Amino acid sequence: MSEILSGKDAARAMNERIKDDARRLRKEGIIPTLGIIRVGENESDLSYERGAVKRAEALGVEYKKYILPEDVSQNELLEVIDEVNNDDKIHGVLLFRPLPSHIDSAAAENALDPKKDVDCMTDMSLCGVFTGKDIGYPPCTAEACMKILEHYDISCEGKNVVVIGRSLVIGKPVSMMLLKKNATVTICHTRTKDMKTIAKSADILIVAAGRAGIINKDYVREGQIVIDVGINTDSDGKLCGDVDYTSVEPIVSAITPVPGGVGSMTTSVLISHIVQAAGKKN
Amino acid sequence: MSEILSGKDAARAMNERIKDDARRLRKEGIIPTLGIIRVGENESDLSYERGAVKRAEALGVEYKKYILPEDVSQNELLEVIDEVNNDDKIHGVLLFRPLPSHIDSAAAENALDPKKDVDCMTDMSLCGVFTGKDIGYPPCTAEACMKILEHYDISCEGKNVVVIGRSLVIGKPVSMMLLKKNATVTICHTRTKDMKTIAKSADILIVAAGRAGIINKDYVREGQIVIDVGINTDSDGKLCGDVDYTSVEPIVSAITPVPGGVGSMTTSVLISHIVQAAGKKN
Repeated sequence: MSEILSGKDAARAMNERIKDDARRLRKEGIIPTLGIIRVGENESDLSYERGAVKRAEALGVEYKKYILPEDVSQNELLEVIDEVNNDDKIHGVLLFRPLPSHIDSAAAENALDPKKDVDCMTDMSLCGVFTGKDIGYPPCTAEACMKILEHYDISCEGKNVVVIGRSLVIGKPVSMMLLKKNATVTICHTRTKDMKTIAKSADILIVAAGRAGIINKDYVREGQIVIDVGINTDSDGKLCGDVDYTSVEPIVSAITPVPGGVGSMTTSVLISHIVQAAGKKN
Repeated sequence: MSEILSGKDAARAMNERIKDDARRLRKEGIIPTLGIIRVGENESDLSYERGAVKRAEALGVEYKKYILPEDVSQNELLEVIDEVNNDDKIHGVLLFRPLPSHIDSAAAENALDPKKDVDCMTDMSLCGVFTGKDIGYPPCTAEACMKILEHYDISCEGKNVVVIGRSLVIGKPVSMMLLKKNATVTICHTRTKDMKTIAKSADILIVAAGRAGIINKDYVREGQIVIDVGINTDSDGKLCGDVDYTSVEPIVSAITPVPGGVGSMTTSVLISHIVQAAGKKN
């Protein structure tokens, strides 16, 4: 029987801190504000937007929407990005992707001022994650992993952490963040040989493979902490992680559930970045 | 008795390829050219400059020097960087650092066009190393490690590679380059616990700790390949690596010596970047 590392609980505690920070800023006359740039009416964008807006409002963060038609031109989009870059009242920006295929996505993404890049979309933000320099913000999901560990007082110092996955959204950035916390980090991926032995060697195992249930009881041992970043749908249409929870949970020392784990924290991390960005305006 | 992975031999082979490429470009009317920006007359800069110039000339690469006084202003330096950025005849640039203390180094370094950043000085070049995007060039020493492995037909695919050191000059970039080659990468550092066990688990061990002889026979086993990135001076004033060569060499399968290893390749890598940059001008 392992400890359940609840992303919901961690988010709740984080939300209180965000609310306090937002309240303090508002007293100083700064209203933390999220700019939302959306092209078209994609349902998954709309769903994410509703969640972000609801969470923002609950935490004392305003928002301003810039809704553009599906056939918006590159120049019109760049003009809107330029507008938010130059608007001191917008502190962080969410630009929904993928963008329509006629848009040069890389150019649009990198047009955003990294200081307002609360979702780590620009190359310069990624550079900040790699170098440890104060440029932009790390990807929300990668940071959510770190914040869950922090919430449960799990130190990374000198720990052997195995990260499964090498994407720019999770694997690589979380590895850099773990290194910064003095973890010894091993990065595994589809070409890794003898993943079972390597996974078992971890004190903390971070699974971001993007494949349902690929980590089962053969990959874990007693005493480990498992962070499951995966969000997949199983054959019954239910949400599930990259970890086979039923077989792994009884063995390890602590584990994040799916749903209710890492995914429950990402919006809070996003909102915290907006409040941080607003605070830097001082 | 292990195989000696000679950086000199690898550099010699690389130099032949560079010469061929430079010759081909010259036939097309492109003269690969290095711009050297030096502030002041620091002896170590001058020594490195002599080596680079000599190697460039031998390989068919021209150079142009921009020598600035020790008391050059930030603006004057930025103007020179702007000049080389806009000069189509300069393909790669070497800017000696550290710069004098009155100069904002980060601003000067990042003023260079990443396309000409043959020594990985800019944030954007580091971003390229992290993301795998074609931006700038990786740090010469990190690439030298990869080139030595390549020269000796040592594949990284699926291998467990342990990197000791997490600097932005070697540890982190070489880890990203190894990941790109499908190695499973473990990054260790001063806070790593049980380094001996971790080092012994490696198929390939890359040592960039920056401390003379810290890896001795207790950290290695039969069958390993050891790349020693360290360049230190021992108590007798002799060059030595981070690996205690005398105790390690008889155990492992292959090892780079110091001197004559990684350090012997870095200038060739630098010149290869200039020729690559010149080729991209087509």
